[in-house]
Amino acid sequence: MSSFLSKRFLSFSQRAMSQESLKFKSLIYSSHDSQDCTKVLKVHNYKPKKGSETSIVLKTLAFPINPSDINQLEGVYPSKPDKVTDYSTDEPSAIAGNEGVFEVVSVPSSVSTLKPGDKVIPLQANFGTWSTYRTCDKESDLIKIEGVDIYTAATVAVNGCTAYQLVNDYINWDPKGNDWLVQNAGTSSVSKIVTQIAKAKNINTLSVIRDRENFEEVAEILEKKYGATKVISETENGEKEFGKEVLPKVLGSNAQVKLALNSVGGKSCANIARKLSKDGLMLTYGGMSKQPLTFPTGLFIFKGLKSHGFWVTENSKRDPENKIKTVNEVIELYRDGKIISPKEDIRALEWDVNNASDEEVLQLITDGIKTKGTKNMVILKW
Amino acid sequence: MSSFLSKRFLSFSQRAMSQESLKFKSLIYSSHDSQDCTKVLKVHNYKPKKGSETSIVLKTLAFPINPSDINQLEGVYPSKPDKVTDYSTDEPSAIAGNEGVFEVVSVPSSVSTLKPGDKVIPLQANFGTWSTYRTCDKESDLIKIEGVDIYTAATVAVNGCTAYQLVNDYINWDPKGNDWLVQNAGTSSVSKIVTQIAKAKNINTLSVIRDRENFEEVAEILEKKYGATKVISETENGEKEFGKEVLPKVLGSNAQVKLALNSVGGKSCANIARKLSKDGLMLTYGGMSKQPLTFPTGLFIFKGLKSHGFWVTENSKRDPENKIKTVNEVIELYRDGKIISPKEDIRALEWDVNNASDEEVLQLITDGIKTKGTKNMVILKW
Repeated sequence: MSSFLSKRFLSFSQRAMSQESLKFKSLIYSSHDSQDCTKVLKVHNYKPKKGSETSIVLKTLAFPINPSDINQLEGVYPSKPDKVTDYSTDEPSAIAGNEGVFEVVSVPSSVSTLKPGDKVIPLQANFGTWSTYRTCDKESDLIKIEGVDIYTAATVAVNGCTAYQLVNDYINWDPKGNDWLVQNAGTSSVSKIVTQIAKAKNINTLSVIRDRENFEEVAEILEKKYGATKVISETENGEKEFGKEVLPKVLGSNAQVKLALNSVGGKSCANIARKLSKDGLMLTYGGMSKQPLTFPTGLFIFKGLKSHGFWVTENSKRDPENKIKTVNEVIELYRDGKIISPKEDIRALEWDVNNASDEEVLQLITDGIKTKGTKNMVILKW
Repeated sequence: MSSFLSKRFLSFSQRAMSQESLKFKSLIYSSHDSQDCTKVLKVHNYKPKKGSETSIVLKTLAFPINPSDINQLEGVYPSKPDKVTDYSTDEPSAIAGNEGVFEVVSVPSSVSTLKPGDKVIPLQANFGTWSTYRTCDKESDLIKIEGVDIYTAATVAVNGCTAYQLVNDYINWDPKGNDWLVQNAGTSSVSKIVTQIAKAKNINTLSVIRDRENFEEVAEILEKKYGATKVISETENGEKEFGKEVLPKVLGSNAQVKLALNSVGGKSCANIARKLSKDGLMLTYGGMSKQPLTFPTGLFIFKGLKSHGFWVTENSKRDPENKIKTVNEVIELYRDGKIISPKEDIRALEWDVNNASDEEVLQLITDGIKTKGTKNMVILKW
């Protein structure tokens, strides 16, 4: 398309999809409920205060329902959006959802780096993604995403960036192949991405998973498909004998276990900490077991253990440039086939934008919030 | 004394105290006993293999009985001396004791920085200090100490250096007076030195001590005599209400609690970790409660807590220059009256070198090992 035609087309597109004709529908909340957070969610239809002359208009394609979204509704998450009256509500309200992928509908004339049709994700958390449309004032608050499916795009900001930064931002890895990381919750979405990123960097992965009847089957998938070097059970993780007799043979003689990734807590945390070599680092980024972290004192004093936390939301706030760099590098790994699309692990919930009633939308979201043990993602059908 | 006379005197001294006439008597062990470590200790009389022509000869003035000495005899301490046959024993043996203060008896002609009469302490652990005399090949393995009493000199390498490095080597303190450290075991020897070093640097100290009947009395001593800013009980340390309502008033509005020093473990550890401001550091250097460390997961993820270990033995090995610098700076603080001599907290056990039988010496040491809850120090009476 010539530049002239392109501009004409965009101009037409902008008119045709003018914000004034768009139906803004968002999942909003003005209070919290730590017992049943679905009670505070409402479907709200409104016209945004700022028009398309000054704002980028975005159409939502998909958003995951992340644990942090739920914790935010429960009022137990330390990061939260301001509650505002921008959406013509009686009470100050916020739009739910921190992550998602959008298509640019229109841009004001001042915007040069984005055009209608581009796929974007929010740079920061608290964007409010559970919505049909959103507006955004600054193009620098968005990251353009190209060449990956919506399942990848809608999860790269949290799971993708978490996995990438956990592996890349803390350890000086030796590329010769003797370095290891150990992680619990080895079947989680983040752990699978960690495993693949580690493999691409020639880092060995020891993944601990819960005991289960089909342990061998799951272990084989993690090893063969995702590239885990070795998968062990929580029982093995906790056995002294295993640590002394079996593990050294698994690791090999020059192994350095430099990083332990903990998203479980409790005993599992202590047991992966024990697997670390001297002066190893543990990064905690989740607490699935709801148990506090425990560590034998000697690991800190005599083995030089360092235990830190990891929070991608905070990292992105502190260093937005690194967030953009991280997203771009993760996307490249997806495009290169180094990381598999999360699609098959995702439970897709279809939001039929043109036909679903407000009640049906709320029911869909409630279903997504209440169905645990799987990654729920809402896909908007336009 | 003129230089000429001085040299003559030293030469005379060296001859008179020639190593060959000295009675080397050491507490040695060739095995370990984790239940009753006094069983493996023997009093051993011998002539060292190396003579005073090549070795510095040292006369012991005092040595503390530290927990690490006992753990070493029990075989549960990760740092230990090699067992050797240098002391004319049948089995390879080591001399007990890591810390102590010596007087130089004689030096070989190659030694220029030390002279008879100088007080010295070992640079590193595993020196073997539970002995009447010791020899030392290198002057660089000794640190000269001047101007402090033997109680100070005999404890500066472990407690003094631990306290100094904990306060000085990890945090970028703001000297304006709003910075705090929090520590448990507030009545321990190290904690008292920490308190005094902190006060000298205008750092506030929140010291947690166990609940006790004479709490007010002990708290007043720690505050008035040692300079703790505020002393609280473990009960207060564990109360949510105290943390929310009382503590902010104690700390003041611009307070930054940057460092938590843990030598207890268990719940006490979690509760002082909770007192830290955002991105605070916990250093664990002991585990008196014998309970593992526990931490709420959120402290790591959302408050940026970092938990590290501290081991003065390892620090000294890694960076001997810093150990020497630390000792000199701590000694200066003692000489300036910024730190009080530990004398009054010490239970002195007198070893009458010229009259005590081997059985009496062993009994004295056994008494020191078995009497808990106090700092035992053996003072050699010459």
